Amino acid sequence: MPEKNTPDSNRRSERSRRAIYDAALALVAEVGYPKTTIEGIAARAGVGKQTIYRWWSSKAEVLMEAFIDLGAQAAEAAGAGDWAKNDSIPDTGDVEADLKTVLRATVDELLDPRYEAPARALAAEGLADPSFGEDFVGRLLMPSLDLYVRRLRAAQDAGQVRADVDPYIARDLFVSPLAQRWLQGTGPLTHAYADTLVEYALYGIAPR
Amino acid sequence: MPEKNTPDSNRRSERSRRAIYDAALALVAEVGYPKTTIEGIAARAGVGKQTIYRWWSSKAEVLMEAFIDLGAQAAEAAGAGDWAKNDSIPDTGDVEADLKTVLRATVDELLDPRYEAPARALAAEGLADPSFGEDFVGRLLMPSLDLYVRRLRAAQDAGQVRADVDPYIARDLFVSPLAQRWLQGTGPLTHAYADTLVEYALYGIAPR
Repeated sequence: MPEKNTPDSNRRSERSRRAIYDAALALVAEVGYPKTTIEGIAARAGVGKQTIYRWWSSKAEVLMEAFIDLGAQAAEAAGAGDWAKNDSIPDTGDVEADLKTVLRATVDELLDPRYEAPARALAAEGLADPSFGEDFVGRLLMPSLDLYVRRLRAAQDAGQVRADVDPYIARDLFVSPLAQRWLQGTGPLTHAYADTLVEYALYGIAPR
Repeated sequence: MPEKNTPDSNRRSERSRRAIYDAALALVAEVGYPKTTIEGIAARAGVGKQTIYRWWSSKAEVLMEAFIDLGAQAAEAAGAGDWAKNDSIPDTGDVEADLKTVLRATVDELLDPRYEAPARALAAEGLADPSFGEDFVGRLLMPSLDLYVRRLRAAQDAGQVRADVDPYIARDLFVSPLAQRWLQGTGPLTHAYADTLVEYALYGIAPR
């Protein structure tokens, strides 16, 4: 008989969901993504395998939602502003300062051990499985990239970025270098690096 | 009895090696990396499994060397100059033109179906297996990144890039956006995109 959708069963579902997220994140950090299984997640969360399969089709899906939830929880716990809730990049009227703030925060997050293991696992799975990759990029990556586009458009309105600049291309100058250093280890990932990227992209590397 | 290192056995080895490379590249393109196995490569190349294990420790290693060889062969067949042989980026005295030439060629290569399947497989494996990733980045990626550093230093000597610019950071403005669009599909990868990146990075997106 299907479970009825009462307040009590909703509370139970919510508890199970949270336990499953915690188990998935803990296992990926402890034994690595390849050795994490739906069975292992179920056992650790104290639920049946079927409970997981009712909501998700693969361990990658579980981990992606656990990761999205982790970001939302962290933002709430910190009483964070709109930026950390992924709604917008701050606009103090100074695009250089605002981009530095956001890129420094991104460096901190990429290096935070709670995020690093699941984020790397999701990125790797996204490359290995193109249809999961599309989902991962669409749900996790593109929304943050769009925040840069919006902030750059505001900077264009304020005359701090040239009106003829394509914000979808300019966005990549800030975001992609961090992504590549983090994914492929092509150089150190520091606040100083983030600051320098912002300065080079805004003012260019040729003599003014 | 170990095979003696005579001219004949060297020729045989060279033939086997080439057959193994071809088989690895063909299988990855046809059935995908996850379904490619050492056994499958050996069968297709007409060699014993032991021949492969004598030279390589994993299918990822075989594929990486096949890919390096593919690049070297293509450069030779095209009678290509130093750039395609991975020795240097052209220096015509115009850094903007030279970077556009190289980035356009990189776009073409990234979209060439012969390169795409193995390159994606190697990048995915590099994320999934950190020690292979380190090897992959060190042997395949860093040497090409260093070409940008050298070309940017020459541009500094010629007064086309500011002397206080760190070429290891500036390099990322050109290379990382292509890498991310290719790896994660965050936007179209075209010659026009390559040209615009070069212009933004050289002259900045803020008003001059």
